[in-house]
Amino acid sequence: MVFDLPRQVTIVEVGPRDGLQNEEKEVPTEQKIRLIDALSDTGLMSIQVTSFVHPKWVPQLKDAAEVLKAIRRPAGVVYSVLVPNQTGFERAVEAGVEEIEVFVSASESHNMANVNRTIAQSLEGLRPICEAAKAHGLRIRASVPTSFGCSIEGRVPAERVTALASELVKQGAEEISFGDTVGMANPRQAYELFRQLLAALPNTRLAAHFHDTRGTGLANALAALQAGISIFDSSVGGMGGCPNTPGAAGNVATEDLVNMFEEMGVSTGVDLSKIVDCARLAENIVGRELPGKMARAGVCKR
Amino acid sequence: MVFDLPRQVTIVEVGPRDGLQNEEKEVPTEQKIRLIDALSDTGLMSIQVTSFVHPKWVPQLKDAAEVLKAIRRPAGVVYSVLVPNQTGFERAVEAGVEEIEVFVSASESHNMANVNRTIAQSLEGLRPICEAAKAHGLRIRASVPTSFGCSIEGRVPAERVTALASELVKQGAEEISFGDTVGMANPRQAYELFRQLLAALPNTRLAAHFHDTRGTGLANALAALQAGISIFDSSVGGMGGCPNTPGAAGNVATEDLVNMFEEMGVSTGVDLSKIVDCARLAENIVGRELPGKMARAGVCKR
Repeated sequence: MVFDLPRQVTIVEVGPRDGLQNEEKEVPTEQKIRLIDALSDTGLMSIQVTSFVHPKWVPQLKDAAEVLKAIRRPAGVVYSVLVPNQTGFERAVEAGVEEIEVFVSASESHNMANVNRTIAQSLEGLRPICEAAKAHGLRIRASVPTSFGCSIEGRVPAERVTALASELVKQGAEEISFGDTVGMANPRQAYELFRQLLAALPNTRLAAHFHDTRGTGLANALAALQAGISIFDSSVGGMGGCPNTPGAAGNVATEDLVNMFEEMGVSTGVDLSKIVDCARLAENIVGRELPGKMARAGVCKR
Repeated sequence: MVFDLPRQVTIVEVGPRDGLQNEEKEVPTEQKIRLIDALSDTGLMSIQVTSFVHPKWVPQLKDAAEVLKAIRRPAGVVYSVLVPNQTGFERAVEAGVEEIEVFVSASESHNMANVNRTIAQSLEGLRPICEAAKAHGLRIRASVPTSFGCSIEGRVPAERVTALASELVKQGAEEISFGDTVGMANPRQAYELFRQLLAALPNTRLAAHFHDTRGTGLANALAALQAGISIFDSSVGGMGGCPNTPGAAGNVATEDLVNMFEEMGVSTGVDLSKIVDCARLAENIVGRELPGKMARAGVCKR
């Protein structure tokens, strides 16, 4: 049945990291903390708060340790951080994280543009990080940017994405998020790729991470849900994009995703009014209108 | 099967009417003609060009007859006009139309706000117009705004929409378009309503008309497609909204809808590059950025 859907999904809020790393002007640390604390209050159970990338590359997140130290961390909510390399990993451990996210692109060209390494080199570099993370008892999440295509290479074959994901599982990833970094995914492709991944990796938590570059973000999320995916990355207000992808619009907006799911009777655990308020707060903090629609449209009349 | 979809769909371009009627500043007649002529060149087979509403209510479209006279009308493309009442119908006939679109809202409150009549009064008023249209050999299309909900009444029961549609068929409508005027539809609802409508009206062409007010436009279009709908209204650039619905974003953007369908392997007959060019032309004409995404993102690399 087309609408025989999971009853419950988990939303992974990535705005404080994926969104704010793309803001031209640096957001003051106390504003980041205010936004993350507000997000923690919505019912979200997983928030990616920052990245331990070198401040030379992403000065916007140079306050990673400070943010992590200052935010409220209510019990049960997972706070994860992005970790690009060994040094970043060590800084993350020092800051007291419980979950790290590592990443390798599905497209060679995108991986090269992003971290100046081949996919094989990235995987090699991950090995000691994942070993150390396991030794520290940290949860490992992996993300795979350009899983659906890349503006340099075009479509990425599903087999390559599946093989890369299997390799990440071998290295210790407990959850893998597949990103449509440049907004090339279409619903049929999303459905088919996730069916294939779910069959290949039945014991790994799989997540969908869509961008709304071509307006298909929510349609792709629907198709992934129909395929059986129940973990979705999104960004409050629809902040974000890709620094190496000119013209890329933001991530799927958390409040728009929550609205669609809740209206369909799929529970997200997130309070819709509160997350819409967070989107307005995010607009306030970055000082411009964000792409998410709910901040203007408001919650539907019941 | 979830993605056992129709192979081919028809796009009904409504931008020149539904879009331009909502523009604050009046667009010069020759610009309208230029846009419609460009749209005629994309492969679109149905274009709603204007409305014969009283110029006092919608001064933006007071040049309806002039536009209709001046546009190129390549063989095979259907040019329709909106007709709100008997006077409008007579003006439309005089201007030489081949298809008219009449409308009755599914929500009493919206119908009252829109035309200051009850639904029953609107249906009564349609009777002589439809009779005369049939006598003139014109095709009758009907649209049903607020089929999925209304900002005053909330959700509209599916049974009421189905009953209203049946009444419109009795009066002579050959095609009926169901509008999500205020962007309240969700994919599950869209799927279920269209399954019900397709079962109740097997001999009538049914169309889906979504707005992107809450970002769900393309997701709803996907669900309608999965339900078996193969006619979709959309507006170039995502122009439009609803004059009686503050904050309503535009219609689903034609170029975004065409992109999603074509990328899924569902043929629209519309040249994607040409319709993206039309969206840029529309932005030029209205003098602002429109909500459609493809004008900025560009066509996906193959």
